[in-house]
Amino acid sequence: MAPIEWIGLDADDTLWHSETIFAVTQERFTALVAPFVEDPTDLEARLLATEARNLELFGYGIKGFTLSMIETAIEVTDAAIPAGAIQVLLDLGKEMLRHPVELLDGVAEVIEELRRRHYRLVVITKGDLLHQESKVAASGLADRFDAIEVVSEKDPATYRRILDRHGIDPARFVMVGNSVRSDIVPVLAIGGRAVHIPYVVTWGHEHAECDEGAYTVLASIRDLPVWLDAQQA
Amino acid sequence: MAPIEWIGLDADDTLWHSETIFAVTQERFTALVAPFVEDPTDLEARLLATEARNLELFGYGIKGFTLSMIETAIEVTDAAIPAGAIQVLLDLGKEMLRHPVELLDGVAEVIEELRRRHYRLVVITKGDLLHQESKVAASGLADRFDAIEVVSEKDPATYRRILDRHGIDPARFVMVGNSVRSDIVPVLAIGGRAVHIPYVVTWGHEHAECDEGAYTVLASIRDLPVWLDAQQA
Repeated sequence: MAPIEWIGLDADDTLWHSETIFAVTQERFTALVAPFVEDPTDLEARLLATEARNLELFGYGIKGFTLSMIETAIEVTDAAIPAGAIQVLLDLGKEMLRHPVELLDGVAEVIEELRRRHYRLVVITKGDLLHQESKVAASGLADRFDAIEVVSEKDPATYRRILDRHGIDPARFVMVGNSVRSDIVPVLAIGGRAVHIPYVVTWGHEHAECDEGAYTVLASIRDLPVWLDAQQA
Repeated sequence: MAPIEWIGLDADDTLWHSETIFAVTQERFTALVAPFVEDPTDLEARLLATEARNLELFGYGIKGFTLSMIETAIEVTDAAIPAGAIQVLLDLGKEMLRHPVELLDGVAEVIEELRRRHYRLVVITKGDLLHQESKVAASGLADRFDAIEVVSEKDPATYRRILDRHGIDPARFVMVGNSVRSDIVPVLAIGGRAVHIPYVVTWGHEHAECDEGAYTVLASIRDLPVWLDAQQA
């Protein structure tokens, strides 16, 4: 196989924590709305359904998630929820946007190591444009990356466009991320390699099926340099 | 002066209508909220103030605008606004996102003419990533552009990054847009040329001062080919 030259890195839940912040917010959403409904057991499912329904219009990111929380709160309470509680949902959304960037264990050291080995690094992430850029800036890693690509969807066409833009041969590219649906399947489809590093929580929307022999699963980004050594051998 | 090779085109209110859709929505916001407040005269100013306050966190675009409408409605009514009215605001936001793309007069013909003359065209626009991409796709003009750049802010650093990425000499670049603040001032700052085509409505945030001799003002995009002829002479 050709040696790997470029490494694509997913950001949320690969470089830094994100889904845990959504999970905490969902719990607070449930606690806030529960007193206004008869049966609070399916509140999380209702929220996920609203998110899925709005995805085509809102895209990924916290602003759309906040709008979906508000919409769900109004819907499940038959508009009985008071405006004060909706203000709390707005505040929760802002809190998420302001949440400090917390790198996952090992990320800072591994990024340094990859730079030392002269790999080219491109962050490929979806979500709100400004928020993703702000998180890269706040991560302290911005100057370690050759490029930052914020995209609206991670499909094969998107990956092909990014690789073309940077003159990257798919055979010399590996994508590293926590989502089989977004980081693995579309990259394999265009002839790249992929490394799955599962995060403790996976958003329902990101679940996907993929032939397990087709990609590598690592327990931690700390295992990436050794895997890269094995590829170059 | 060097001949112009690349033309940067702002999108909202330069290629297609946008601010008029915001203006209509603001009127509906005012009509909806007015019955719940004592003095409805400053509702638009309050909304603009909320938008300005949230800009750093939300960035540009309709999702942030919708969240700001909801926040303002709750704030000015001391949380007396019913959830049903907030649902109407959510629906207004979705209606804006779904609004069909209406090209400004002359845009389709002028873009064809510029292509015929072998200018390279790059759309440079700010707002929600997915929504801006969707509007380019819906415009029917996507294959006429050499590149689409959706950015979180139009400052000199952003323009420099875009020009570098495409290997564009600022001396051979002109930016065309409706906002002096976003399309003119930062482009002049990096040594490019700029053409201001005012739109019927300008969002309060986009007002700015600029030395009037430093750039060209055209009444319509229809005047652009003749202006380009004069530049190349």
